[in-house]
Amino acid sequence: MKPRIHVITLAVADLDRALAFYRDGLGFRTEGLIGTEFTGDEKTPDGATAVFHLDGGLMLSVYARSDLAKDASVPLAPAKPGEFSIGHVVASRAGVDEVISQARAAGATVTEAPHDRPWGIYSGYFQDPDGHLWEIIWNPALDL
Amino acid sequence: MKPRIHVITLAVADLDRALAFYRDGLGFRTEGLIGTEFTGDEKTPDGATAVFHLDGGLMLSVYARSDLAKDASVPLAPAKPGEFSIGHVVASRAGVDEVISQARAAGATVTEAPHDRPWGIYSGYFQDPDGHLWEIIWNPALDL
Repeated sequence: MKPRIHVITLAVADLDRALAFYRDGLGFRTEGLIGTEFTGDEKTPDGATAVFHLDGGLMLSVYARSDLAKDASVPLAPAKPGEFSIGHVVASRAGVDEVISQARAAGATVTEAPHDRPWGIYSGYFQDPDGHLWEIIWNPALDL
Repeated sequence: MKPRIHVITLAVADLDRALAFYRDGLGFRTEGLIGTEFTGDEKTPDGATAVFHLDGGLMLSVYARSDLAKDASVPLAPAKPGEFSIGHVVASRAGVDEVISQARAAGATVTEAPHDRPWGIYSGYFQDPDGHLWEIIWNPALDL
């Protein structure tokens, strides 16, 4: 297995809301909703998704929580934060504050305001409208 | 905000188990446990983590579930699958079966054996030891 990740798929309650948050709120590039021609049933998931094309070739996609549960054959259950976080690194301390502010303006919930952490970084966390965590990080040891 | 993800952090119950799964089972490059000199308390998380360096510059890290909850200021709760999935694309149908087999041998649980999906891909899902979903995908429309 090559050590590579091509896509991160986030389970969401409302595709349109997630699309608006990432496209309009954070400014991520996307063709909008695709795959809407694939309608599922009790066992087969719908195909509707939105894919955001990130720098570096990685894709971020949003997919209905119920469809991901069917697609992966795992139980459907209410959203729960804290399973993972997405880390986004910026080039300065002020950059952390700016991104956190942008996310808040886009409708995110800031769970942990930016502050210095014991291991030498300055970071804060927000949750997207479905509770998924993003950590915005400035690490003075990294030259971006 | 630049459309970029630098790190994906997975909440895990046992750092050593997660390290063994990704390093020894899947073959991902890592320096092993780092940050163990940062010990937390009831409110401050420990710093111990392991970081895997993936092709393309993305990092995958594993971090104790209780520490991620403290770091992000979200409630600590039992693990729950279905919040997200990680997509790994291979160059052939056989490649999907091979990676799923490798993961199973490494201790993963295959929740959905590989099969053709309505939108033209062939894929299957496994869960890592903490329940995090990976989808292994062959998409004949993609030239890898």
